Amino acid sequence: MRRVLVIGIGMGDPAALTFRAVEAINQADVFFFLDKGEAAGELIGLREAILRAHRREPWRAVTAPSPKRGTAGGYRAGVKAWHDARAALFAGLIDQEIAEGGVGAFLVWGDPMLYDSTLRVLEAARGHGIDFEIAVIPGITAVQALCAAHAIPLNGIGEPVEVTTGRRVTAGTPEAPAFVVLLDDGSGLAALMARGWEGHVWWGAYLGTADERLLAGRLTEVGEAILAARAEARARKGWIMDVWLARPLPAAGASFETL
Amino acid sequence: MRRVLVIGIGMGDPAALTFRAVEAINQADVFFFLDKGEAAGELIGLREAILRAHRREPWRAVTAPSPKRGTAGGYRAGVKAWHDARAALFAGLIDQEIAEGGVGAFLVWGDPMLYDSTLRVLEAARGHGIDFEIAVIPGITAVQALCAAHAIPLNGIGEPVEVTTGRRVTAGTPEAPAFVVLLDDGSGLAALMARGWEGHVWWGAYLGTADERLLAGRLTEVGEAILAARAEARARKGWIMDVWLARPLPAAGASFETL
Ligand SMILES: C[S@@+](CC[C@H](N)C(=O)[O-])C[C@H]1O[C@@H](n2cnc3c(N)ncnc32)[C@H](O)[C@@H]1O
Ligand SMILES: C[S@@+](CC[C@H](N)C(=O)[O-])C[C@H]1O[C@@H](n2cnc3c(N)ncnc32)[C@H](O)[C@@H]1O
Repeated sequence: MRRVLVIGIGMGDPAALTFRAVEAINQADVFFFLDKGEAAGELIGLREAILRAHRREPWRAVTAPSPKRGTAGGYRAGVKAWHDARAALFAGLIDQEIAEGGVGAFLVWGDPMLYDSTLRVLEAARGHGIDFEIAVIPGITAVQALCAAHAIPLNGIGEPVEVTTGRRVTAGTPEAPAFVVLLDDGSGLAALMARGWEGHVWWGAYLGTADERLLAGRLTEVGEAILAARAEARARKGWIMDVWLARPLPAAGASFETL
Repeated sequence: MRRVLVIGIGMGDPAALTFRAVEAINQADVFFFLDKGEAAGELIGLREAILRAHRREPWRAVTAPSPKRGTAGGYRAGVKAWHDARAALFAGLIDQEIAEGGVGAFLVWGDPMLYDSTLRVLEAARGHGIDFEIAVIPGITAVQALCAAHAIPLNGIGEPVEVTTGRRVTAGTPEAPAFVVLLDDGSGLAALMARGWEGHVWWGAYLGTADERLLAGRLTEVGEAILAARAEARARKGWIMDVWLARPLPAAGASFETL
């Protein structure tokens, strides 16, 4: 039986990997890199740095250009078509590059469970008539890196937290007493500001890298600064990855104890 | 300046620690263990196993009985009084056990950001007139261990996820298209079943330990088995830690693509 290891590598700092991730890195016969263009060049560089730091023997890597995501038919249809093309690609890679009884590995940014398509695409690749086992090794997510950098808890005491996307926040303000926003191009934060939303935000960009930036405070006081820092950094580096946690101010009469 | 390291240790498997966590373990002059009784004995044992696996020099640990949490005045008031007592305890420990310029460490189950009071109590301890820096090292959470064990994503494509507690689910079914439930004594799952909720659940107990148990399926088909496995394991070991992810069935007409 072939095995596919889906290894969470955290935010790019080799020291943020777990020992299990490093064990897995040393079990793989071949690594699969998908080149998504743009930021991805730098991200593949980070993956290679991780292999240089942790792999004890020479390694073989196969880099495939990732199918492009179209926008025809709307967001979900575009994602669906993209997943189908990726499923065929993954099936081909597994079939051709992993020997019977061999081990292939995907190095996934953060943790494979969070806003990442690798597991879904692998499941879909099974539909192409090849058989393989999947093992997942968790990694530190952007959400954890954000909370650690600010030394804050994610949740209020006994309270729920919503994990969501910039697109969702642009469509409407989450009702949870705390929400953390990934995949925001700035529109989600700007939408909250435009709505006069009152609360605290903790923002972090390039977490875990040398370019890490942090800002926090009342949205009314730091919102503009975050959008400006974001635009400036994005222009300079050509890409940005940022994440933010938001907590609405407690309604009048409620205490601040959960902040 | 004194430093306090708040180190996420994952689910008790020494190999689930990150390299940064191990570096931090080797920087500490003293470790603080809070003995909460019951399950905590076993958990302190796991923490010691982690130190044995990763600490290169002899270590000093201070174990303090944790103040008991009362229920007078309701859940939040009880938690508040408990935090106050813990803040005084932490302030005393830091003051007496960490030398000027020294480093103390708390080993926190999973990640300190998630349903853990250490960071909040440390903030409150600052109110006691001692000054110290806090550094947080993330660890793998129960949510990640659950998703990895089942090899599933947490979120549907582009969809939000609610992270919540058994208490909340008992009070009402979350509306998010996916929700993950910690701190459930079984009542939350039983409440969903009693409400005739339709959807899939992925359940895991003692994740990352030798006792790991996994069950998954339609709630109508696996709900009873989960409650039975939970009750049996709890009776046998005297304590249980379990977590589950739920996804309601898509409304009629919606596709299954996000499952
Ligand atoms: C496709 S998602 C992948 C998330 C990843 N699987 C994880 O576990 O964090 C990419 C989003 O994660 C967040 N992100 C990833 N890396 C980040 C970093 N170094 N700093 C800040 N945010 C980051 C951003 O919100 C970005 O839009
Ligand atoms: C007080 S919270 C602490 C969460 C922890 N800070 C984390 O990052 O996972 C305790 C809850 O975490 C979950 N949990 C912790 N360890 C677990 C394990 N080994 N297996 C399953 N669930 C676990 C359970 O829902 C438990 O009620």
